[in-house]
Amino acid sequence: MAILRGACMFGQSGGPSSVINSSAAGVFIEALEQECITQVYGAAHGIRGILNEEFFDISQEETKELMLLKNTPSSALGSVRYKLEDYKIDDTDYKRLLEVFKKYDVRYFFYNGGNDSMDTCNKISKFMAGSGYECNVIGVPKTIDNDLFGTDHTPGFASAAKYVATTTMEVKLDAGVYDSAMVTVLEIMGRNAGWLTAATKLACYKGLGPELIYLPESDFCLDKFVEDVKEVMTNNGGKCLIAVSEGIRNADGKYIAELFADSLAKDSFGHSQLGGVGQSLANLCRDKFGCKTRAIEFSLMQRCGAHLASTVDVEEAFIAGRESVKVACAGGTDKMVVFERSYDENGDYVCNYNAIPLDLAANTEKTVPKEWIINDGTHISDEFIQYALPLIQGDNKAPLEDGLPRFAKLKKVFVEKR
Amino acid sequence: MAILRGACMFGQSGGPSSVINSSAAGVFIEALEQECITQVYGAAHGIRGILNEEFFDISQEETKELMLLKNTPSSALGSVRYKLEDYKIDDTDYKRLLEVFKKYDVRYFFYNGGNDSMDTCNKISKFMAGSGYECNVIGVPKTIDNDLFGTDHTPGFASAAKYVATTTMEVKLDAGVYDSAMVTVLEIMGRNAGWLTAATKLACYKGLGPELIYLPESDFCLDKFVEDVKEVMTNNGGKCLIAVSEGIRNADGKYIAELFADSLAKDSFGHSQLGGVGQSLANLCRDKFGCKTRAIEFSLMQRCGAHLASTVDVEEAFIAGRESVKVACAGGTDKMVVFERSYDENGDYVCNYNAIPLDLAANTEKTVPKEWIINDGTHISDEFIQYALPLIQGDNKAPLEDGLPRFAKLKKVFVEKR
Repeated sequence: MAILRGACMFGQSGGPSSVINSSAAGVFIEALEQECITQVYGAAHGIRGILNEEFFDISQEETKELMLLKNTPSSALGSVRYKLEDYKIDDTDYKRLLEVFKKYDVRYFFYNGGNDSMDTCNKISKFMAGSGYECNVIGVPKTIDNDLFGTDHTPGFASAAKYVATTTMEVKLDAGVYDSAMVTVLEIMGRNAGWLTAATKLACYKGLGPELIYLPESDFCLDKFVEDVKEVMTNNGGKCLIAVSEGIRNADGKYIAELFADSLAKDSFGHSQLGGVGQSLANLCRDKFGCKTRAIEFSLMQRCGAHLASTVDVEEAFIAGRESVKVACAGGTDKMVVFERSYDENGDYVCNYNAIPLDLAANTEKTVPKEWIINDGTHISDEFIQYALPLIQGDNKAPLEDGLPRFAKLKKVFVEKR
Repeated sequence: MAILRGACMFGQSGGPSSVINSSAAGVFIEALEQECITQVYGAAHGIRGILNEEFFDISQEETKELMLLKNTPSSALGSVRYKLEDYKIDDTDYKRLLEVFKKYDVRYFFYNGGNDSMDTCNKISKFMAGSGYECNVIGVPKTIDNDLFGTDHTPGFASAAKYVATTTMEVKLDAGVYDSAMVTVLEIMGRNAGWLTAATKLACYKGLGPELIYLPESDFCLDKFVEDVKEVMTNNGGKCLIAVSEGIRNADGKYIAELFADSLAKDSFGHSQLGGVGQSLANLCRDKFGCKTRAIEFSLMQRCGAHLASTVDVEEAFIAGRESVKVACAGGTDKMVVFERSYDENGDYVCNYNAIPLDLAANTEKTVPKEWIINDGTHISDEFIQYALPLIQGDNKAPLEDGLPRFAKLKKVFVEKR
């Protein structure tokens, strides 16, 4: 098989993470070293940048700045939420992508993202193959949600988990400081998969975790919730710390956040005052128990808190990027890089890298195993600790400059349109 | 003057900070070394612990754990919000305090907190002096709000400022990731003083700060706000990052949060759905501009994010604790320890320690200088950077254990009631 020569295109897609740029660094550093790759392009805002012929010439960047990407949160090239139509229904976008790929001789395409992005990547891969245009397409996994199938875990999850666990420990100390009743609700990202909310279990492991943890994987019942909280308060000096996934649902599959939203009147400005589900549950507790309550949403911080990234995650994300390029340059295509876990002779965690068909990655969602959800849907088993603890090891953050992080500064030189 | 011999009592009061326990460590370590101090007591939940004769015997704690307090957030002894009546009106509590002090031979009293706590400390100091019971009373400053009079800055402020600045930089990267309009509102603590919100200016210094910053020190007008945001969006590709103090008020002195609250209907559960002022302003922008908006409340994290504490703050807080004991053991009383700033021959920041009468500290609030608030109340001048930058230097956090912080674990052995 002849080695494919040509340009490579890399794009970032979906919600950012603390280490998505570490994968970008891996792709760029490796691609710049590969002889078969003639140009390294970074798409501005993912697929949209390719469609608009807006991409950066990565060879113009300094290696030092590319390496700083390892500790720079969010998507340095810009991200996008753009759903490609099935090409059997409408192939307009695909034809345009093919046109751009041909024009710039793009023979390697790397797309970095979660479930939706792998779906996009898969469709493009299939279309390119069907069109007869030779282009090796590799998905680079990324998501704090940890819900990609076929990989032991996803880059981005561990750092978000470390943020969630550390912050939960700190908040637990703060929320318990007064000698009065207090209910605190932590709202954590995760629409369908509770992996990140489960990370509060790590705080329990250090003695500073929530008394109650609710994931989207089990049905949530408001009445039972009130009873759960009441019981904890009774046995715990009136204090209760609760972690909930934003995506908790009732037995009918309806989001609890929506239950509250439906019941909302608008204020006189005409705004509906929808808080998150955490705020709604805190309000419910305030009304039921007449005590002080507080809702805390970890919001964007949990996915951009790069100052709390784990070394394991930063390095694995970087290697995932490098591996993607290696796989493609060795002739691999239509695949996503995955992590496989093993333990060495000392029982220490080892991450192995492999690649699976994009079809597999694109169409299956990995949720927290039902058997890890215990205590009638209110807590997480120790199996999660064994699973997650190796992933959050080590501190790895941007160097300080003036006491603040020195993030990568890319020149972002646009490639001239042809 | 004979050296006063007897027990010392230390209490923590008001909202916690990342370094309030560092001051506790300073007081304890120093007090345990002082010959004139016969016992070292830590009051459970401040004044209330003394009234209830609930305090811990600090000599039972291991030095290693006391030193870990330097990096353990929140108030390790428990805090309290308890307002003492003026003793000229009702001296019940004071008589009880005197009774307890006499019973346990407490001759040194240290109280750690902000404005309200210094008021408490001041009242106790005056009452003890008036009663003829010899007891040296020293206030140990603490507040993330930085609003204590007579000190260049307060322990706790710098670490909170570092948290706010770092997190703002990270959020700025995340919030700008899509190529669509987006308004993000950061809500930051501070009812009357905008010091902590002003800390977002440090993020501007690193090129990743808010376009608009609103402090409680200047009048806030909703109509003008909408115009301000509109102008930024027009010139900034539809993006606007805004930092607001929770305590922003209109020209009539009414909290903006209350303006929105007044207009709220209740939902069908009977709850009023009051979010913070950040959420209300984000909703307003959503309705006015039809774009995606997000409100982020830094909530408890900004005051308990010890993993982002500054070395300068941790060490100064520790020394403030030690100095308090030294001042008292040298015969000082009725004072609060303060920080005075100077610069050495290299122009480097130096912190000097002094003590001022409690009267001064207790009754004056220090706000951000009006002349530092610029651009028609929408931004902060560079003077703030010069002021704050030396304070946020260095990283200083708890050692990692299993990838998570190892906070102090105190035995908290109660002193037997007499």
